[in-house]
Amino acid sequence: MLGSVAAACTTLSFLPQVLHTIKTKDTEGISLTMYVLFVFGILCWLIYGLLSHDLPLMLGNGITLVLSSIVLLLKLKSKADERTAIL
Amino acid sequence: MLGSVAAACTTLSFLPQVLHTIKTKDTEGISLTMYVLFVFGILCWLIYGLLSHDLPLMLGNGITLVLSSIVLLLKLKSKADERTAIL
Repeated sequence: MLGSVAAACTTLSFLPQVLHTIKTKDTEGISLTMYVLFVFGILCWLIYGLLSHDLPLMLGNGITLVLSSIVLLLKLKSKADERTAIL
Repeated sequence: MLGSVAAACTTLSFLPQVLHTIKTKDTEGISLTMYVLFVFGILCWLIYGLLSHDLPLMLGNGITLVLSSIVLLLKLKSKADERTAIL
């Protein structure tokens, strides 16, 4: 029960960040290193879940991977746009 | 092994975010809702780890709780500063 609440909160917490970043297009305050490490870590968790046939681990990390990857892609896109603007 | 790499990455990923936020003081792009949900979720994970006497769960979530709480506090501080500036 407590584990489910915990998992739901940490997984779904990335949804407001995705919406916030899409709305404001402001990624300056977001650390690229954080999201590279985080997405890689969640990918490892997902593989770990797949290998150990653990459905909650697969499901939770699958959703978190999609959401955190969107934030990472938006951060990378705005970095690329900045570079284009300078050239 | 894979689980340890995954845990290390997701836990330590919040460190560059803390350093980034302290350095830039830019919290505009950070979602307050995300960090409120995330910190609450990690707190639940920590209690879950304590109740089930799971040391890796306690350790990982303890560190993540400290790091993500710093980001949340910096976000709340800049929100408060903004409000003071308006008044």
